[in-house]
Amino acid sequence: MSAAVETAIPQVQRPFARAAVIGTGHIGSSLIRAMRRVGAAREIIGFDASEAVRQRLGELAIVDSVAHDIATAVGGADLVVVATPLGAYKAVAEAIAPHLAPGTIVTDTGSVKRPAMRDIAPAIPQGVHLVPGHPIAGTENSGPDSGFAELFQGRWCILTPIASTDPDAVERVAAIWRAAGSMVELMDPDHHDQVLAITSHLPHLIAYTIVGTATDLEEHLKAEVIRYSASGFRDFTRIAASDPVMWRDIFLNNRDAVLEMLGRLYEDLAILQRAIRVGDGETLEAHFTRTRAIRRGIVEAKQA
Amino acid sequence: MSAAVETAIPQVQRPFARAAVIGTGHIGSSLIRAMRRVGAAREIIGFDASEAVRQRLGELAIVDSVAHDIATAVGGADLVVVATPLGAYKAVAEAIAPHLAPGTIVTDTGSVKRPAMRDIAPAIPQGVHLVPGHPIAGTENSGPDSGFAELFQGRWCILTPIASTDPDAVERVAAIWRAAGSMVELMDPDHHDQVLAITSHLPHLIAYTIVGTATDLEEHLKAEVIRYSASGFRDFTRIAASDPVMWRDIFLNNRDAVLEMLGRLYEDLAILQRAIRVGDGETLEAHFTRTRAIRRGIVEAKQA
Repeated sequence: MSAAVETAIPQVQRPFARAAVIGTGHIGSSLIRAMRRVGAAREIIGFDASEAVRQRLGELAIVDSVAHDIATAVGGADLVVVATPLGAYKAVAEAIAPHLAPGTIVTDTGSVKRPAMRDIAPAIPQGVHLVPGHPIAGTENSGPDSGFAELFQGRWCILTPIASTDPDAVERVAAIWRAAGSMVELMDPDHHDQVLAITSHLPHLIAYTIVGTATDLEEHLKAEVIRYSASGFRDFTRIAASDPVMWRDIFLNNRDAVLEMLGRLYEDLAILQRAIRVGDGETLEAHFTRTRAIRRGIVEAKQA
Repeated sequence: MSAAVETAIPQVQRPFARAAVIGTGHIGSSLIRAMRRVGAAREIIGFDASEAVRQRLGELAIVDSVAHDIATAVGGADLVVVATPLGAYKAVAEAIAPHLAPGTIVTDTGSVKRPAMRDIAPAIPQGVHLVPGHPIAGTENSGPDSGFAELFQGRWCILTPIASTDPDAVERVAAIWRAAGSMVELMDPDHHDQVLAITSHLPHLIAYTIVGTATDLEEHLKAEVIRYSASGFRDFTRIAASDPVMWRDIFLNNRDAVLEMLGRLYEDLAILQRAIRVGDGETLEAHFTRTRAIRRGIVEAKQA
């Protein structure tokens, strides 16, 4: 990118002195790239639990330095971003807590918001601000090479601070996401987890299931499933190629809402299944006509 | 497109004198556009059961003429393409049969192949060749405006002739699809219907269901489903926006294979559901890791 174009990008008004990003996979490394681009911090430190990822992070040269332990990463930071799988939250919170200076802002990027309150909040010392966040963006790719600064452009980012959170801390986190091109919304964490159960977690569960069903097919059908995937199946395989550990943790951490939505899905599927079995074309056509409308809503909302 | 580029497109070696396309929606009108481009017939006649579609077809000026009854459309044609929903096959076959000259080739574009054998073959007079076909291509859009000549490029087209079919008739239909950019494969119709049940019909059924489940949500969740659809849901809504009548007929005509695959899906879903309920992260992670592999297969097969 040329220097002229670089200058045109709106910069964050009140940059952090030192931002530490814990977990530098697809989302973490995309956020690092976006933060550099918008001048969100004068210095960005990256840390990842995987040595291979840390090494690659150094080679990519997208951070000012790679920390080799988590205490070094967050020491002196005034912004800490936790971008690990949800299952690591408790250990990460306990490891960083003793090194957080008063006034530091801690945020995360997890796809379920209750774990931030359950696993991070209790460890956070007095005077440190927790602003949980969830950028609704991502591709099916993983790792630091797959990240890119534009990932968040035109996408929503949901922040779920509690009522007592310092509004200025919320605003400084929101400012980074807005600079990265996102629309920021505040939401209750429980409500967030319900909404995402239907818009994201259930579709992923179903895609993972159906792609698994296809891999268990008789050999003579299996090769053809790949060959003729353009007929609908490939959209499911893209979803079902998402990071296995990240998704394991999402399902384990949003169990109740996912199982509730799955129960509703079963009921609706039974209705269509019966219509197919008894040859009830009217029920099928009426249902399929109704589902077109919601797609139009999405196209109009520019999320298509 | 400039004349120079137009000349560079490989033309069909043995063009038909007069091709009639019955049903000029998304697929029919795309095929018309592709056939014109590759010189598949010296004259192309279009017919659609809907008067509004016929009028629009005339305005689009992509056919040499629009027929206002089906007998006129196929009279004197040496190629007839049936591109209607499957539910219209029987009536179309009976309406065209008396007007088919010996040597005429009849083909179709239906997503289930048994109906062509069941509903078209018995009506076809002696000396007329039936070569059922299925281009594995399409978008979620409908109607003659949504068609485009490039729809079939790089996609598979499956032909399901029976053993006694004239090989030259099969070759002439295959030549059109190859000129349109498709890879042509011959297959047994029953086998085709099984493969498509898992790669296409089941994914559509699930997408239709889950989008329906979302539209039945409490009002305060519904708007947010649209807003935050980028998290996985929108891929399902695209699939679930496909033509309702076309899909009604697919499910009614491939009942047994779809219900069989749905039964398998239920079994697999029960395993993941249980893993979520009891917190069995190992089962989830192992399953999600396995499904990544099939996506890689699709990317390698260039169908992604």
